Amino acid sequence: MNSFGEHIKLTTFGESHGVAIGGILEGFPAGVEVDENFIQSELDRRKPSNDKASTPRKESDRVEILSGIFEGKTLGTPIGFIIRNENQQPNDYDYLKDIFRPGHADFTYAKKYGHYDHRGGGRASARETATRVVAGAFAKTVLQKKGIEITAKIKQIGTAKTPDEIDRLIEQTKADGDSVGGIVECVISGCPAGIGEPVFGKLQAKLAEAMLSIPAVKGFEYGEGFASAVMKGSEHNDVFTSTLRQAQCVAGSVTESVLAIPTVRPTTNHSGGVLGGISTGQDIVFRVAFKPIASISKPQQTVDKSGNPIKLVNHGRHDVCCVPRALPVVEAMTALVLVDFFSYLCN
Amino acid sequence: MNSFGEHIKLTTFGESHGVAIGGILEGFPAGVEVDENFIQSELDRRKPSNDKASTPRKESDRVEILSGIFEGKTLGTPIGFIIRNENQQPNDYDYLKDIFRPGHADFTYAKKYGHYDHRGGGRASARETATRVVAGAFAKTVLQKKGIEITAKIKQIGTAKTPDEIDRLIEQTKADGDSVGGIVECVISGCPAGIGEPVFGKLQAKLAEAMLSIPAVKGFEYGEGFASAVMKGSEHNDVFTSTLRQAQCVAGSVTESVLAIPTVRPTTNHSGGVLGGISTGQDIVFRVAFKPIASISKPQQTVDKSGNPIKLVNHGRHDVCCVPRALPVVEAMTALVLVDFFSYLCN
Amino acid sequence: MNSFGEHIKLTTFGESHGVAIGGILEGFPAGVEVDENFIQSELDRRKPSNDKASTPRKESDRVEILSGIFEGKTLGTPIGFIIRNENQQPNDYDYLKDIFRPGHADFTYAKKYGHYDHRGGGRASARETATRVVAGAFAKTVLQKKGIEITAKIKQIGTAKTPDEIDRLIEQTKADGDSVGGIVECVISGCPAGIGEPVFGKLQAKLAEAMLSIPAVKGFEYGEGFASAVMKGSEHNDVFTSTLRQAQCVAGSVTESVLAIPTVRPTTNHSGGVLGGISTGQDIVFRVAFKPIASISKPQQTVDKSGNPIKLVNHGRHDVCCVPRALPVVEAMTALVLVDFFSYLCN
Amino acid sequence: MNSFGEHIKLTTFGESHGVAIGGILEGFPAGVEVDENFIQSELDRRKPSNDKASTPRKESDRVEILSGIFEGKTLGTPIGFIIRNENQQPNDYDYLKDIFRPGHADFTYAKKYGHYDHRGGGRASARETATRVVAGAFAKTVLQKKGIEITAKIKQIGTAKTPDEIDRLIEQTKADGDSVGGIVECVISGCPAGIGEPVFGKLQAKLAEAMLSIPAVKGFEYGEGFASAVMKGSEHNDVFTSTLRQAQCVAGSVTESVLAIPTVRPTTNHSGGVLGGISTGQDIVFRVAFKPIASISKPQQTVDKSGNPIKLVNHGRHDVCCVPRALPVVEAMTALVLVDFFSYLCN
Repeated sequence: MNSFGEHIKLTTFGESHGVAIGGILEGFPAGVEVDENFIQSELDRRKPSNDKASTPRKESDRVEILSGIFEGKTLGTPIGFIIRNENQQPNDYDYLKDIFRPGHADFTYAKKYGHYDHRGGGRASARETATRVVAGAFAKTVLQKKGIEITAKIKQIGTAKTPDEIDRLIEQTKADGDSVGGIVECVISGCPAGIGEPVFGKLQAKLAEAMLSIPAVKGFEYGEGFASAVMKGSEHNDVFTSTLRQAQCVAGSVTESVLAIPTVRPTTNHSGGVLGGISTGQDIVFRVAFKPIASISKPQQTVDKSGNPIKLVNHGRHDVCCVPRALPVVEAMTALVLVDFFSYLCN
Repeated sequence: MNSFGEHIKLTTFGESHGVAIGGILEGFPAGVEVDENFIQSELDRRKPSNDKASTPRKESDRVEILSGIFEGKTLGTPIGFIIRNENQQPNDYDYLKDIFRPGHADFTYAKKYGHYDHRGGGRASARETATRVVAGAFAKTVLQKKGIEITAKIKQIGTAKTPDEIDRLIEQTKADGDSVGGIVECVISGCPAGIGEPVFGKLQAKLAEAMLSIPAVKGFEYGEGFASAVMKGSEHNDVFTSTLRQAQCVAGSVTESVLAIPTVRPTTNHSGGVLGGISTGQDIVFRVAFKPIASISKPQQTVDKSGNPIKLVNHGRHDVCCVPRALPVVEAMTALVLVDFFSYLCN
Repeated sequence: MNSFGEHIKLTTFGESHGVAIGGILEGFPAGVEVDENFIQSELDRRKPSNDKASTPRKESDRVEILSGIFEGKTLGTPIGFIIRNENQQPNDYDYLKDIFRPGHADFTYAKKYGHYDHRGGGRASARETATRVVAGAFAKTVLQKKGIEITAKIKQIGTAKTPDEIDRLIEQTKADGDSVGGIVECVISGCPAGIGEPVFGKLQAKLAEAMLSIPAVKGFEYGEGFASAVMKGSEHNDVFTSTLRQAQCVAGSVTESVLAIPTVRPTTNHSGGVLGGISTGQDIVFRVAFKPIASISKPQQTVDKSGNPIKLVNHGRHDVCCVPRALPVVEAMTALVLVDFFSYLCN
Repeated sequence: MNSFGEHIKLTTFGESHGVAIGGILEGFPAGVEVDENFIQSELDRRKPSNDKASTPRKESDRVEILSGIFEGKTLGTPIGFIIRNENQQPNDYDYLKDIFRPGHADFTYAKKYGHYDHRGGGRASARETATRVVAGAFAKTVLQKKGIEITAKIKQIGTAKTPDEIDRLIEQTKADGDSVGGIVECVISGCPAGIGEPVFGKLQAKLAEAMLSIPAVKGFEYGEGFASAVMKGSEHNDVFTSTLRQAQCVAGSVTESVLAIPTVRPTTNHSGGVLGGISTGQDIVFRVAFKPIASISKPQQTVDKSGNPIKLVNHGRHDVCCVPRALPVVEAMTALVLVDFFSYLCN
């Protein structure tokens, strides 16, 4: 339950305020040149930055790779890595020890485990996604060599869809001591046809599982998504066409020749690049909905473990919206889904 | 890739026009009384019925249980079962042999496997979901004993949300030789707090994977879902409250007593019954979007494997909307997700 | 726990006296031509034959393949199959209902499950190995195309090592109403170097697991096995040599040329064809010890579930030694181990 | 392939001469008090000691636990840990860079991966077993609370079976610049009946897999093992008896009372404590054969990667026999097998 993937598999560990978080990436092919600067740069994308949505906390996460690489190339053996947790000041969180914070997992962890690490969310903290970004960077290294690019973008924050709108909304929300949700759109380009498995291993099922495993995600849709519910089959079906003939320019005169192997492809992409769980060769397009961050500065009514009413006022500084920092996480999980299917084909 | 679940696991096989479809349900606890009539009745819910959305084809699927039950009770050993495919008239499908049907998996299967069973969709046919319904009925048997009920309902078909509207839309769509999508809402009631796992094994991640593995599903959301993207944290957070005192009526006079163990619970359910991947004890609520059925009577332009343009006119009778028949499938997959988590707790 | 393999995986079901036994073979590659007669002939090798060690019971097991094959070739989809249990005369076993038979699993199943199928061993019966033989025949089909042959032979029965000795021992044991154990030696020839995984996925670990999962097996050793415990390193190490030069006969005169790529190989095979968990390219050699069959005609003292002393006299006819019928089972499990590693390399 | 266990699962990483080795132990129950001194003390048992069989190299392995423990108790979240590799002097191994050492995995790793870490065996080094000992110590912590003890002992080294004999043999072998094999016997006491799974998940199959995954192991047997091959069923079957009556001494006079629940148990233990793959409640007894260590001081003939003959003389100091240091590894793997089955019963 701490692993993701079947063939190229990430297993993670770590509480947000323990000694370190980290992971093991198994099944990664041997002989791949790895640029450790790229791995670190992907991790840096997840840092709270100077963008308006993020808190000015300073986090200088450094990944330390412990195994699986020798003389700059992968060994085919598991890649172990850790990221030490700095600035552990557990006392900062003492006031939260017995409080059930609204929208957080304190309550459900207490129900499940009894004993849990209340400091900054422990295992439930979004901090664990840093390990996913590290593993995702390895996955991207392999995918890029196959010509596959993964790009996640902000589609909207709240109702705002343009940079100006978004900046204004973030500032207003921060001033209100509140937070706001948003939607990320991710596009996979360059993925060949034939990736994915029938029945339970459908490409979209694995992407959905991957996305819903990211903290704060409330929904996933691909292609037309929820909009397809109000469409007719004659609108939604992507019609196939083929290139039977190829124009050629030989010695100044254009000729046409019949192709031995015609290229069949859909003319539109309502399907979002997947049919029957398997990629069509078109762009794979999906969207992910994020709820507003649960930690807000506004005072909130709640209770402690003994059921006593508590007025909760958060001391820490918190992001206003998780969407900007979630982009590398969405990309990383997408890369892990894809690379797992590729290992299946060509390991 | 043909299995679902980790502890209580379903593995399925079968092409829609082969000899039989079937499955093995492993990890099911010993000593559970099984009502084979209930299993069959769940399967019957998936049959094309007299409702307006379904085709009048006659399918009399009978499940045959081959192992795992002795003297009316489960043995704890794997439950093997098959459903024979009747009315195999493979020639009915000869005209489709080399055609890529728009919106179907013929194209992607050809890309992936080269060799595939073109008859009625083969492994890609929604017929495989019959095996899920059988296994789901076993899962429901256990969950019902724990007081857990799963109910999937039609939320909308196209834009229609009331029975009258829906009937009119279906009739019009059928007259047009077209099909239409829809949305299913599913509610799990009676689920205790503490079900689900942190990080990759979140309850919502497993539900999303389960739903997106159902043919024709294009989206999944739980709680406020995509609507949460435009909410503020102060709106979305579910505030906790507790019952510290209990009113009692003793001998005509009302008294209050302090409860030894206060009951803490959220007062609203924007979260959809899950926090941090783990159930809160409230109703778990999610929605699933279905695209319109790809097979329509209207003529469609497409190509064959050689790239020749083809005007496709479907001979068979097809459902206008898959949503009514999908309800038992959504419930079955939900039951399989839940029972797998329960086995983890109390097997 | 009813599955074997990771990539090409067999999952089985069935009690010996239920409706049927069967299995699902997943991950098998697409486009492989399958000879159903070969599958059946492998199953026939497991039948009680006219050899002296087996009982004259008539079992005419017929495998029915339900999916995964279309027009004589595999589809890449799961292969479902069943073998119906004939001659179900459950009353034959009524006298055993409450008895703990010495050397059988009745006692441990009662401890584990409470409720179990006492008829002929249920899930604990060696009858379940018929499903392994079917799946193993599919695996052999693929391996043979790669030039890999698996051959299991009787090494000894009791202390007897030659056919004459063995026949005499079997006859005497049968006359005594007793049973006897034996040792099987299995050789894999044609397996290329590089098969197996470091650490937990060692080739010998998977073979050992496979062999110890066969009923009545008490030991596994490969290469020098237990004899290596009394050897010195200088005796046990297989020294490497290489072919740097190649003798050629051109136009009557023998010349020598230096090979561009020298062939390195060990000169002896104390290792049994595996080093560090990975095949060397030599023959892989291992031995499997079988205990004597637990069911004997001689009267035995035991107790029933209520603890009452019982004098047990078996009514049924039983094999004197399981080793002859175990040969195809040893081969089948070996084939399943190997094919799983190959799928990993070249699926 | 770097994981062991299904429910309580260890995943490891690390080359012997990389930065660190380590692992993640998942599924471990929450709320268990952990004595970190005990974990370290188990690891210390694996160190080369002053016993005559081990080299005087100084290894001061320290385990650093990174997650999963809070305020002295487990959190139920994954336990991440590392052991840094000290004294990394990779140049020590430069002379081995292109040599295939007899009895080592250099040759098979070169065949499998092409690119590998030649320094001290890399991932193939027995050093990786240190991570198993750490995880095994956690497993023992849980098992000991259930009254289960695991004890591995030297049964023989070479042909020597008593301490004096063994010391003399070790000294002589060391003087010869050679190495020698041996046999370990392991006994599990206090294990209740009912542990293990039918068919592929038999207790002995998992133990065999675990043992054969340990470097240098060549064989596994349980109960009578290979000796059972020459036994008769009437000798090998363990007869059941029961305690129906209990002698009591009340006020000086002995009386007998009939027990409400009779205790059924086998009177002998030829089976080695397992029947049909499931524990009987008796001691579980098995033996493991180790080959002589491949690294010896005696000069050996071999070849390099280019096929050139090489006279190999090991510079480093090497153990004469791995058996003494293997005892905690055998116990650790046994503990991991058992605790995995227990999690299945009572997590």
